[in-house]
Order: sequence, then structure tokens, then C-alpha cells
Amino acid sequence: MRDECGIIGIYAPGKSDTARNVYFGLHALQHRGQDSAGIAANLGGKIQYYKDRGLVQEVFSDEKLGRLAGDIVIGHVRYPAEGDTHIINAMPLVVYYKGGALALAHNGSLVNGRALREEMQDSGFIFQTSVDSEIIAVLIAQNLKDHGMEDAILKTLGTVKGAYALVMTAEQKLIGVRDPNGIRPLCIGKTEGGFVLASESCAFSLIGARLIRDVGPGEMVIIEDNELKSYRFDKKPKKAGCSFEYAYIARPDSDIDKRNVYMARSLCGKILAKEAPVDADLVIAVPDSGTVAAIGFAEGSGIPYGEGFIKNRYVGRTFIQPNQSMRELSVRLKLNPITDNVKGKRIVMVDDSIVRGTTSMKIVKMLKEAGAKEVHMRVASPPVVAPCFFGIDTPSKEELVAAIKEIDQVGEMLGTDSIAFLSKDGMREAIALGDNLCFACFDGNYPVEPPCAGRVEEGGA
Amino acid sequence: MRDECGIIGIYAPGKSDTARNVYFGLHALQHRGQDSAGIAANLGGKIQYYKDRGLVQEVFSDEKLGRLAGDIVIGHVRYPAEGDTHIINAMPLVVYYKGGALALAHNGSLVNGRALREEMQDSGFIFQTSVDSEIIAVLIAQNLKDHGMEDAILKTLGTVKGAYALVMTAEQKLIGVRDPNGIRPLCIGKTEGGFVLASESCAFSLIGARLIRDVGPGEMVIIEDNELKSYRFDKKPKKAGCSFEYAYIARPDSDIDKRNVYMARSLCGKILAKEAPVDADLVIAVPDSGTVAAIGFAEGSGIPYGEGFIKNRYVGRTFIQPNQSMRELSVRLKLNPITDNVKGKRIVMVDDSIVRGTTSMKIVKMLKEAGAKEVHMRVASPPVVAPCFFGIDTPSKEELVAAIKEIDQVGEMLGTDSIAFLSKDGMREAIALGDNLCFACFDGNYPVEPPCAGRVEEGGA
Amino acid sequence: MRDECGIIGIYAPGKSDTARNVYFGLHALQHRGQDSAGIAANLGGKIQYYKDRGLVQEVFSDEKLGRLAGDIVIGHVRYPAEGDTHIINAMPLVVYYKGGALALAHNGSLVNGRALREEMQDSGFIFQTSVDSEIIAVLIAQNLKDHGMEDAILKTLGTVKGAYALVMTAEQKLIGVRDPNGIRPLCIGKTEGGFVLASESCAFSLIGARLIRDVGPGEMVIIEDNELKSYRFDKKPKKAGCSFEYAYIARPDSDIDKRNVYMARSLCGKILAKEAPVDADLVIAVPDSGTVAAIGFAEGSGIPYGEGFIKNRYVGRTFIQPNQSMRELSVRLKLNPITDNVKGKRIVMVDDSIVRGTTSMKIVKMLKEAGAKEVHMRVASPPVVAPCFFGIDTPSKEELVAAIKEIDQVGEMLGTDSIAFLSKDGMREAIALGDNLCFACFDGNYPVEPPCAGRVEEGGA
Amino acid sequence: MRDECGIIGIYAPGKSDTARNVYFGLHALQHRGQDSAGIAANLGGKIQYYKDRGLVQEVFSDEKLGRLAGDIVIGHVRYPAEGDTHIINAMPLVVYYKGGALALAHNGSLVNGRALREEMQDSGFIFQTSVDSEIIAVLIAQNLKDHGMEDAILKTLGTVKGAYALVMTAEQKLIGVRDPNGIRPLCIGKTEGGFVLASESCAFSLIGARLIRDVGPGEMVIIEDNELKSYRFDKKPKKAGCSFEYAYIARPDSDIDKRNVYMARSLCGKILAKEAPVDADLVIAVPDSGTVAAIGFAEGSGIPYGEGFIKNRYVGRTFIQPNQSMRELSVRLKLNPITDNVKGKRIVMVDDSIVRGTTSMKIVKMLKEAGAKEVHMRVASPPVVAPCFFGIDTPSKEELVAAIKEIDQVGEMLGTDSIAFLSKDGMREAIALGDNLCFACFDGNYPVEPPCAGRVEEGGA
Repeated sequence: MRDECGIIGIYAPGKSDTARNVYFGLHALQHRGQDSAGIAANLGGKIQYYKDRGLVQEVFSDEKLGRLAGDIVIGHVRYPAEGDTHIINAMPLVVYYKGGALALAHNGSLVNGRALREEMQDSGFIFQTSVDSEIIAVLIAQNLKDHGMEDAILKTLGTVKGAYALVMTAEQKLIGVRDPNGIRPLCIGKTEGGFVLASESCAFSLIGARLIRDVGPGEMVIIEDNELKSYRFDKKPKKAGCSFEYAYIARPDSDIDKRNVYMARSLCGKILAKEAPVDADLVIAVPDSGTVAAIGFAEGSGIPYGEGFIKNRYVGRTFIQPNQSMRELSVRLKLNPITDNVKGKRIVMVDDSIVRGTTSMKIVKMLKEAGAKEVHMRVASPPVVAPCFFGIDTPSKEELVAAIKEIDQVGEMLGTDSIAFLSKDGMREAIALGDNLCFACFDGNYPVEPPCAGRVEEGGA
Repeated sequence: MRDECGIIGIYAPGKSDTARNVYFGLHALQHRGQDSAGIAANLGGKIQYYKDRGLVQEVFSDEKLGRLAGDIVIGHVRYPAEGDTHIINAMPLVVYYKGGALALAHNGSLVNGRALREEMQDSGFIFQTSVDSEIIAVLIAQNLKDHGMEDAILKTLGTVKGAYALVMTAEQKLIGVRDPNGIRPLCIGKTEGGFVLASESCAFSLIGARLIRDVGPGEMVIIEDNELKSYRFDKKPKKAGCSFEYAYIARPDSDIDKRNVYMARSLCGKILAKEAPVDADLVIAVPDSGTVAAIGFAEGSGIPYGEGFIKNRYVGRTFIQPNQSMRELSVRLKLNPITDNVKGKRIVMVDDSIVRGTTSMKIVKMLKEAGAKEVHMRVASPPVVAPCFFGIDTPSKEELVAAIKEIDQVGEMLGTDSIAFLSKDGMREAIALGDNLCFACFDGNYPVEPPCAGRVEEGGA
Repeated sequence: MRDECGIIGIYAPGKSDTARNVYFGLHALQHRGQDSAGIAANLGGKIQYYKDRGLVQEVFSDEKLGRLAGDIVIGHVRYPAEGDTHIINAMPLVVYYKGGALALAHNGSLVNGRALREEMQDSGFIFQTSVDSEIIAVLIAQNLKDHGMEDAILKTLGTVKGAYALVMTAEQKLIGVRDPNGIRPLCIGKTEGGFVLASESCAFSLIGARLIRDVGPGEMVIIEDNELKSYRFDKKPKKAGCSFEYAYIARPDSDIDKRNVYMARSLCGKILAKEAPVDADLVIAVPDSGTVAAIGFAEGSGIPYGEGFIKNRYVGRTFIQPNQSMRELSVRLKLNPITDNVKGKRIVMVDDSIVRGTTSMKIVKMLKEAGAKEVHMRVASPPVVAPCFFGIDTPSKEELVAAIKEIDQVGEMLGTDSIAFLSKDGMREAIALGDNLCFACFDGNYPVEPPCAGRVEEGGA
Repeated sequence: MRDECGIIGIYAPGKSDTARNVYFGLHALQHRGQDSAGIAANLGGKIQYYKDRGLVQEVFSDEKLGRLAGDIVIGHVRYPAEGDTHIINAMPLVVYYKGGALALAHNGSLVNGRALREEMQDSGFIFQTSVDSEIIAVLIAQNLKDHGMEDAILKTLGTVKGAYALVMTAEQKLIGVRDPNGIRPLCIGKTEGGFVLASESCAFSLIGARLIRDVGPGEMVIIEDNELKSYRFDKKPKKAGCSFEYAYIARPDSDIDKRNVYMARSLCGKILAKEAPVDADLVIAVPDSGTVAAIGFAEGSGIPYGEGFIKNRYVGRTFIQPNQSMRELSVRLKLNPITDNVKGKRIVMVDDSIVRGTTSMKIVKMLKEAGAKEVHMRVASPPVVAPCFFGIDTPSKEELVAAIKEIDQVGEMLGTDSIAFLSKDGMREAIALGDNLCFACFDGNYPVEPPCAGRVEEGGA
């Protein structure tokens, strides 16, 4: 499971190097999307942009940044949804409406995207990409016939449904929007002489910004004339922030909706230690996703924390595949057990979540082969039993191991001596935001009715 | 001056390797556009495509071609108009209308493109590129609401004005269109079990096709069920094929509107020899553009033909610039005089045309420095006095040397001992197509009213 | 400080894919050298090779590996010494002597390299690189005039002085050598039907090998006819294995000279907690180098372990530099404090070593700015006071902060509330190999007399 | 058949941008070698260099040239001999002898290279490449033990046998050498404040140099202190310049040994027209190699000259192969007949030479298919009957069609209506250098005894 996007926008009129700051900010958001990156710069209403496949540092060069001068600059990193690897779907999306240009970066997923798209195609509109951003842009452009920018966007937001954190720029404005449930994160930072909007606050410190607050559910903020104006486009917003951000997606040094991710994730581990205690010699993490929770578990249980694996950080994406006879060994290329530290010990192995269970199975096997006496798996979130329709790329229900097997059966499949998941209540306690959370992937209760049909198959390269 | 595009489409149901044939065909059209290349493949109505900056052989790999399986495949090579280097403007353009996809490759330029674009933006449409193809695609999509594909296109062709040779694919169709003046070329080839449409017939031989005929002015052809159907969408087409194709753009081994380019170009030189005779020792060409006409001039005048320059064929686009002190010498990198062959001789130097005159000036100077006794410049087309609005990227009138100076002054500026241009009548005689030609760049008589305003500034990368 | 090389060799006659196994082995050794990589394959005495700048996965493709068929294959990863970035210096070095070819991979540094080189140049020999491997190769070739391969190498080893772990192949042999002090590591693994030599045992598991033993100090092993023969070329070897391998260089899942690195490194932290206790709320590491020792410190002190920083793992080598005004902030790009976890706390920050101290200074400052009440630095090795001449790239003595300042002054410079280093005795206890260690960088007692003069300045690209 | 190298050296103390001038000079020599390129810059006796696979403009960037500052700079372009594609064999070769560095660029081939190499290996020397330059460098280094640079080189030249044009730099010297037969070309140019040595004089004009004279057979020139000193190292030089340079290899705007290549090549065609007249309608060339001779043939015969083929100049080296069914057509990708110009005509097709005859056969077939009534092939050099051992990569005798077939049989194989070759006397007359020429490939009379054995198989990548 992985998030599909990270977005950022900087308002800094008269400053040079704003594109460079967006570039650095995108580095801090790189964990949210590693497939493509893009930056669009608004200078006096004219928009220049560049986007391509690759990591932020692969996509941009000094020369390319140099051509992206602007008072308002937005950026985007992206994981494509399964099977969508077309560069045309990279963001930000830049469109030309009557008399102007609009750049748009989107994190999330519309539940009525397909319906809206078909409706518009019925009216003779064409689409060039398969991203929801294009739907939003078309709607805004249509509304611009009769309205100013603010109202055109507000009217559009009354039409789209689902999860959306948006950063846009047009005219002299930087615009940020969060859907009425505030499912995907978006926060506001302040710099000397400007503002920043970003998916996560970890993008702020390295560009000299400080976190002011989050964009609220159902709120649109427009920054113009160096002032931030707030618009509430949903009268009855019902906050339902993504709990999975705290469990896995967000960076531990980010605060989302005023809650620090490290502290929440660590507390998940600590509470899990109370909920599912085990008599053991060593707590280890599945690196890196389980590390923070494992440290919390160790603290909660009093069992020493240690490292059980070495993660090879040089193994990248363009990797030559081993041949058949080596397939078995290949997981060791990324993760190798520290035999001396696990041999003869009763191990608690903590991970953030279990999706398909295939990797966990290999890892448990490696630990046993390395001589671990017992392996007790502790998962710092509840079983994932339902797909996400709000911007996280989950497999279908049939592939979610916890949706099709009892917990005991899962443990049996993985080869653990015991297995336990954090309860939903435990997770709620750790995140400490009361009922303002979406637990849909853990309980199937969607804050917005999900769509019935599949993915739009469009787009090129 | 250079053409902006070359287009090709192959209809070959059930054949593999059709994308590969398009790839080879694009190689033969490479002289029509060297900035970007693209291929779109239609398999059962679904369209895959790939396009990028670079020469055809740089853009495509075996692997990329392998992913472009299709029964109908179209391709495009492109020179961007001045200042437009955005990859988003590469073609073919692929759009998704209600229930289907359409890929479109266009050579030419609409004179009412800007007006149509603004009109559509008034109706709430957005644009993502600055190419006319997008306008055509939007219009077709709108007409598809109430019509089938044939009628939707025909209705669209009633709206757009200017120069357009189009190759499109949608549903199970390969579609070719030429504007009512047939300004840009488009011809039809036949293969075993299929058809080919291409800007020039030189693309046919290497893919095993033979030229049947040209698409006529104001004609649309649709190839479906292995049959070619013809539609005349303009009742009173007035043929006005681009004369500059014969003078410079097209490849000598192509036939356009039944006239072979080599024969026409060579005859231009021969007639020029009669119109503007000169007493000299040697006829040389400015390679490669003047070579064919120079050979004709030699034949017409009885003066021996020889080579005066060596053209360095290894100097490409990614070339390191010489420093200030070497600027003067740098033209010799591409073109160096053969001193022994020009020394002490009275030279006739033939070129296809003169636009700004800056390069000619340097070349004349080199010849003189190499010891040429006299340099008589003979230009195998009339003076270029007006910009083209039909797909050839010409400088503005103020930069056209023949538009702002008398012919004598031009010769003086270039440093020639004499200078002469082919007459329009001479060129008409050489091309041998009567009045069915556009000479607008030579006489300012546009077959279609040109637009008043400038370029649309849109598009990104 | 960083090691300069990782080496590997696989003997697997009749097996295909041996180059692929070397490739995977080099991935496991990538931490020992990230500048260039090379593989040489010996098939029936003929040697094919490929080497280039870049990470292992950047240098090799499926196609390149496919051309490296061999019964015996060796590989090398390399950090160049300061200023030496010439590709010609990449390894393995392959040379052609009378009647055969020899490929050679070297980790270490000769103390008499310069003298030997000059001596040979006096005799009319030329050099093409600046690496010691070329000296060794020239000596072997000269000795081959009068001796067989074994004796030629043994005679050569009597001439060279310093640190060298060598993996070589010639004829049908895979050869491994370790200098009389065994300074740099080299261990032997066994596979089904073959042998492996590698700098570290972490390279073994993913290619299906198991660790048998280390090559001893002053030992040469030759693997031929599927048998391993051992030669002792030094009668009185004096073991002095590099202690810095345990502190920083080697991967925690490796065993060097029968001592596991994780266990030694963790014990360093634990002993340090006893030697230099501190009253604090949280133990954090400077990631990743200080992590294992910090865990040990937490265990030894009873203070909870936690994470204080997020390390951005996407920031690579080809990184655009921030402008002047952002210089200060740029360290946050790689390392950002987790404010919520350090705010108001008394922090113990553990690192593996301090060389120049400049990075530590920035990190301490970040912690204080994040609100840490106290920052106590604990270094899990003694102060580095002398340069290494045995294969680790250390700055000159004047740049070693602990060589020019008292410990208190170091703490003052770094801005810590307290600072302490592990004692040499403590480190010796943790590594648990008695006196068989080199502590030269910590105490200046070199097991081999170091050279007086500087680096050879030769080589190209 | 193709030459293996182009070399250049510039002596310009105190000038910046000398590497840039070498870079431009190498562009002019690119036709002599398109596989790899290299530049070595000597600044105060220290040599920096860079070399890689690719065309000159692919290998060098502004940044790379910037690092090659020097008072004396040499360069090299290279075709590898068959099968030798190792980057290590790229030139210039740079070696470090006692107290200094030497860079060496070589065009030609030693006939006693293999013998010398084995002799030196017997003495314990090793080799890292398979190029003759390394042998020369080793010999010079050995002689430097007892001699100064001049004498060391002169002594070396007494040992090596075969064809060699050398450009070298060491100390503060630029050195040029041509073997006692002057087989390969090397000429001297003068600039303001410096000197240039180059394979061909076409490299001079674009860097502001003028041709003074050629290096003589058996002459060494040393440029130092801005003076050129000449040394005759062979008392009885016997000039035997390569006649094939005039027929095919050299650029027409070069003068070799005071004879302009264009004039010689054109005269070959003219004489051929007298020697082998034919009643025909049109003379065409096989472009580009036959163009100059064809123009001469037309002039000599009075038959009009025209173009019969279009050569596609965009088809490069990284070209996707057509599939089996298209193999036949693929020659048309590079060369397509101009049907209208050849149809129904009796054609004289002129080429510079015939080696294997396979390409000629395809071309004749294309002409016939295009409707040519008759095709008379005229070859502007004698039949190639013997391999070259002096730096031109020829196939073995069995593959030379004229060595194994009578001329009539050759014509039959090619499908021509008649075929004729220029006589040796005719060629001698055209080149106009009397007996000072090597015609070995045409008559088997080698000016130096060729070696009996094959190629050295060494070198890596």
C-alpha cells in the first residue's frame, strides 16, 4: 500500500529561487511518490512547467529550475496507480482557459470521477489524461464562464466527491483545498514574506517555513496580495483524516492535524505491547516501516530493542533480476538478518501493517533460518480488510490476506509462533484525534460512498 | 525556413510490426521535422502512444516499439514553431471522447486557429497544448455528440480554415484529410493487405508500398474494412499546392501531386540558367539544399558542375559553441571551401532560396578568401517576400532580406559579383502544375486569408 | 573517513551466471565503495572485463553481464582517494603478461608504493594508472619470467609493504591474499561446487555461500581444480586487524575474523554507557552510523532509545546545491529533527566517531533549536588523532578535530552539554580480539611504518 | 575499408581554449574515425586527458573541455579494428615514465608489433591494451633510462617497423613523426603564436591555421620554445604515400603531400572516362564516396551528371533493425533511387572502389527496379586484390571480390551491363606524385614486409 501523491505550493512574490525551494520541498515529500515529479511556476499569470518520470533529483537540473521563475510555484510527486505509467498523467496539470492559465496538483481520488468524466464526455468534452485533476480543471473552466476564480472553484468543489487535497495557482493566487472530510493532509506554513502549502509539515523546516495550521475539512484558502483568505465550502464538514498516514505513509517528523506522526506511531507500538504482550528476548522492526512502532513496543514491554536486519540502501529501482535458481535468495539483497543478534532468541518482530503477507512470510522464514527460537509478529495497526478509494493504492479485497483469513490462519501462513494486531481502539487512542479519523481500510466504513466501478483506462506516454 | 511536420499512417489489420513500419517511414520523413517524434497505435479502438523530443531513432527503442501493437498505426515528426519546444505539443495528439479514443497527426497551420480556440474557451473548454490539432480534436468531439465519426469530422472540416494535412485513427478507421487548397502534401500508398498515408511518397518504397495517388484538395479518405472510401467535403476546391515543397522542403525522390521533386527542382536550375546566364568556369551548389538545382543549372548553361564546399556531416545539434575569437571561423565547421577547385575561377553558386541572407554572406566571403575570381549567385526560386501562414516557419517580413531590399542591394550585401533569382513564371514552368500552386511566400497572394494576430503562447513540457 | 574498496571473487567452474553472482555480491559490498564498479571474468585463461563510474546497478546491465562469462569471476567497488576520479583507476586491473592475462582487485594501500613505482620507472617501466594494483601487477609479471604463478606472486608479496587484501585470477586460479598484519578483511565462503572470497561475509548469504573462515594474516590461498591450497608467505605474521571496520565501515551482518560487527558495535555502546554515564531522558543516534551503538548505549544505561532525526534516503549524489541564503538549512535536507520527540528532553546523542566535527556541530545545533533541554554527545570509539595509511581515506592531522583540541574544547566547539568518547580499552573489550587489532587512527601506533611522502599524481579518465 | 584513425596536436603556449581548438579540429577529422575520441592536455609537463566511445560531440561537453587546460594539446579519433571495441584501447594513450608523462596518438599499424610485444613480455613487461601505441610508449620509456626525449624517441623509431603517423606530447614538446615510407599522412600548420600537426589539412582552416608543409617520410619534428626542429631518423626514406587516401579516405578539401584530394579524385573519374568510355544518358554517383569521381567522369565523357539516389542523412548508428521480411528493403532506408531520373535511361554509376561487392549488388538491383535501361559501373580505382597492413581495416583476401573473381565475373555478380576499373597508371597520373605512392591494396607490392600472423587479442572495457 502506498500513497499516490505529495503536493506543495509556495507563494513568494518578488523572491527569486522559489522554484528551488519547491524542489527542496519535494525532496522532503519524496516518500509520498517516487515515480514522477513536476513543478509549475506562475509569473504574472503565465505558467511555465516541467515534469517527467523519475525522482525529484533525476527530473530536475539547475538549468531546468532556472527556467521556472515565478512568484507562485507549485510542485508534485507521484506514484501512479497500478498500470498507469504514462508521463502525460504526471502533474501538475496545466491548462489554458479563457484568458488565463491554471496549474493544479492533486492528492487523493474522486469517487465520482468516472461518472463526471462520462457526463462531460457526453457534453462533447475530451480528455487527454486519466487523472482526476483534469476533471477538476474542466469543471473550473466551465464555471469560469460565469464566475470569478473563487466562485468557479467553489462551484466545482460542490460537484466533486471523494478525497482531494489540492494546491493550485492561477491569476496571482495560490490556492489550497481540502475535501469536506479532510481525508488527505494539507497544511499551511509561513515564511518571511510568503506562505507555503504542503502535504506534510516535514517540507517546511528546510525551506525556512514554520507550520501555522492545517487546511480544515471543507476549507479553501486563497493566498493573494500576501494575505490568506479562508472559504468554507462545506457547511457541515465531517473530519475523517486518514489513519493510515500515521501508521505508515507520513514522515515521522510531520504533524498532521496537530498530531505528530512519530509520537502517534510510537504510541501505537506501546499500546500494542499492552494489548498483546509476549514473553521474549528482543524486539526488532521490519525496517524501515516498522521501526518507530518497534521502539514503542520495546518501551511498552520492557523487552530490549535491537536490529534484526540490515537493509541495503543501495538497491534501487533499476535492478537486474536474479535468475530462477536465485529467486529464493533475492529478498536477502534488500534485507539480510543479523544472525548473531537473533540466533537462539525469542524475537518480537514489529511491522506497521500487513497487506498481502507475502513479504512477511519470507522475513519470518529468514529469521528462523538464522536461528531465532521463536518469532512473534506484532502489527502496529488493525488488520487491513477493505480497499482504499481515497488515494492509497490498495490491492483488491481478495488479495488482502486479513480480509480472507482469520488472524490465526494468517499467523500460520506466515510461520509465526504468535501474531497480533493493534485494535482499532488502540490505534484511535494513539492518534489521539477522537472520532475525526477514517479507518475505512480497517473496518470498511467509508466516510464517502465509494464508487462501484473500476479504473478509467486512458492516457498515453 | 523549414516545414513543421511529416505525417504517416498505416492500415494493416492482423499484421505485426506495423509500428515498426511507421518507424521506418518516419525515418524517410525525418527531413520534415527533427525536433520530436511520436507514434500512436490503434488496436481494436484502444490507443497506445509514445512521443518524445529527439530524432526518430533517438525517441524509439525496440522495447518501446514492441509496446505499440496495433492494426492501425500513425506517426509524426515535428519541428516546433519558434519558441515552442514543449514536449506536450509533440504529436500525435491522443484524446478520449465519449466511448472512444482518437489519435491525430497534423501538418499545416490553421488561419482561424486562434479565433476558434478563443471561441471554445468562451464556451468553457480548456486547452493543454498550443497545437492546432487540439482545436480539431475538440471540434470533432463536440460534433460526435450528434454525429457518427465521418460526419463529425466532415462537420469539423467545415469550421477550420487554413492548411491541414491530417492523418487520424479512431474506431477501426485510418483517416486522411487534405484542406480545400491541398496546400500541404498527403499521398496514398498501397501495400499487400493494407494502405499507407504519408506526407511524401519517399516513405513508401522502404516499407514495400507503392504510390497510388494523392489525397485531393478538399478530400477526406477513410480506410476501413480494407477499403478506401473518398469524401469530398469542399464543393469547390481550389488547388494551391505549396511551391516551396518543390524548391526546398520535399525529398527529391518524392512525387507530390504527380510531379517528381527532383525533376522539378533540376528544371528550376535549368530554366534559371536560361533566364540569368553568366560567363563562368564552374557551377557549384550550396550543399545540400542547392545541389539539384545547381546540377540543372550546369546542364542548362553548359558550364561544368563541380563541388565547391565540403559539408561536415558529423556536426550535430548538441554542439559546443566556439568562443568569441573563433565565431568567425565557425561556419567552416559545417562548410569548408575546396580551395583548389575554386581558386582563380569564375564561380556560379546556386542555392534553393534566400531568406535572411546571413549564411549566404558568409559563404560568398569564404569563396572569395579561397581565391574565387568572381562569385555569381543564382537562386533557384523567386525572392521570398512574404511570410507563410500555412505550416512553414518563416521569419517576419522585416527579416526577409528580399522583402526589404532591392535585388541589387541584396547582391551588394552578400558581396556577389552578380545575383539573380528564378522568375515565378520560370518556377511555374519547372513545377509544371499550371496554376494549381501557392506562391504566397514569393508574391504575397494567399489562397486563404491569413490571420491578423500572432502565435498562441501556451503549453508546457 | 571511508574505506576505499570492496572486493569479491567467485570460483565456480562450469556454472553459468557467475558474473551475476559477483554482481549481487558487489551490491552487498556497495557500502565499501560507491564511486566505481568493475567485474572481470576468466574463461579458460582469457579475461573479459567491464568497469565504469557509478553504483553497481548503474554500471551493469543485463547485456553487459551477459558478456562476462567465466569460470572464475572477480569484482570490485571503489571509493577513489581524494582527487582521484579517473576511470582508468577503476578496478579490477587487467594486464597481459607473457602468455596470459591477470585480473586483480585490491583493497588497502601500500606504504612503499611510491618507492616501488619510482624504482620500476628507473628500470624503464611505465605506468598508466595511479593505483597500487598496477605496481603489484608489474612485479608479478617480472617474477613470472623465472617462476610459475604461485612463486611469482609469493616473491612479489615479499616486496610490497602495507595493507593489502587481494583477489586475483589468472590461468585457472582464483587467488586471495591478506597482508602479514591482516589489516583489511578478506574471508572465504563455500558454495555448492565452488568457493567465494569477499571483503565481508555479508556478501555470502544472498549468493548461497556460507562462511568457512578468514584468510589469515600473511596467507595466500589459491583455489584451483576445486581445491583450496594455503600458502604462508610470512613466517611471523602479526595480526593487526582494522578496529575501524567494527566501529564504522563494515556492515553489521558481517563477521570479521570471527567477530560479528553488530555485536561488537553494540557492545561499544553498552560499555560507553558504563564508562561515561549521563542522567538523561532519551538516547538517540546520528543515523545511520550511530544507530547500533546507540541501541547498545540505551541498553547499557537503561535510558529509553528513540529516534531523534529522520534521514532522507532519497537525497543522492547528483543533487542541486541550495543557494547561499539556504546553505544553513541544507543539512535538514538529509537529516531533520523529530521535534516532538526531543523537545524539552535531556538527550544522549550517540555517533560512531568524530573526524572533523563539522557535521556534529550542525546536528547539535538542530537539536537545540528543536527544543532539546540538554545534548550529551557520546562517541562509540576513541578520538581519531592520526591519519590512516592502510586504505581508509582520512583527512590530514590538522583537520582531525580531536588531534588538535582537548576533548573539552571539542565539546565546546560542538555546543554539547557534555561529551565523551569510548576508551581504547573499552573498544578492545567490545571487539574481543585481544591485541590482534590496529588502533593506529586512535593512537598513532602503526603496525607497519607509514610512508613519509604524499600521493602519486597520475592517471586520466 | 576504412581508416583507423585521425590525429591532431596543437602547440599554443599561453593560449586558453587550445583544447577547444583540438575539439574543433577533431570534428574535421571525424570521417577518419567515429568510434571513440580523446584529448590529452599537457600543462607544464602534467597531462590531463579524457577519452570515451562515441563521436567527438558525444564524448566532450563544455565542462569536460574546461578541465583540459594545456599549452600543448593532442587529440585522436578512432575506428577500432574488427572486434576491438574496448574503451581501454581508445587514444591518446597517456603513460607515466620516470619523472614525467607522455601522451601519444597514433595512426597506422606496426608490422612488427606482435613480435615486439612478445619480446617485451619476455622481459617481464605487461600490457594493458592491444594498441601499438603502448608498444611505442614502452620502448620510449626504456630508452629514456639512458637518453633524453629526442634520442629516446629516435632510438625507438629505429626499432618499430610499419606505418605510423604519430603526434605526441611530453615535457614542453609537441612531437610529430611519420614513418620512413610516409604511408599515413601528417601535415604541419602554422597559427599566430603556435603550430598544429594533423592527419589532414582540412582541420586547419576552422582553427585559423594555414598549411606549411607535410612531415616528410622518416622525419620527426619537435616543436618547443615556439620553434620547429626537424630530425631525419631514416637515412634512405622511400616515399610511399597511401593512394587509397586520395581514392576514398581523405576529405576532398585536404592536401596530402602537396596534392589536393578533390583534384586527384576528380581526375581519377576523368581519366576513367577516357580509359573506359560508355555510351550513356546519365552519370550518377554512389553517394557520397563516388560523387567527386562521378563529376570528373561526367566532365571527361561529356555525359550529363545527375543524382540517382537520395542518401538519408538521419540514419545513424543506433538504429533498430528491420525484421526478416523487411531485410530486403532496408538498404532503401539509407539510399533510395530517384526513379524519375533513372527510368528508361542508360546509367553510368561511379563509385570510388569495390571491396566485397555486396552493397554494389543491391544498388545495381535498385536501379534496375527503378527502370534504368542499362547500368554501367565505373570504379575510380583499380581492383582491390590485397589486404592493407598499414592502418586500413580491410577484409581478408578471400572476401575481396576482385581478388577471387575476374572482372567480367564481378560485373556478372553485380548485375551490371558493363563494368570497368581505373588502371593503376591512370590513378598514378591522377594523383600526380610519380612513384611515391603505395598501391599495395591494388597490386600486393608492400613497401614494408607485412607480418605473417594475426591480431593481438588483448584489452578490456
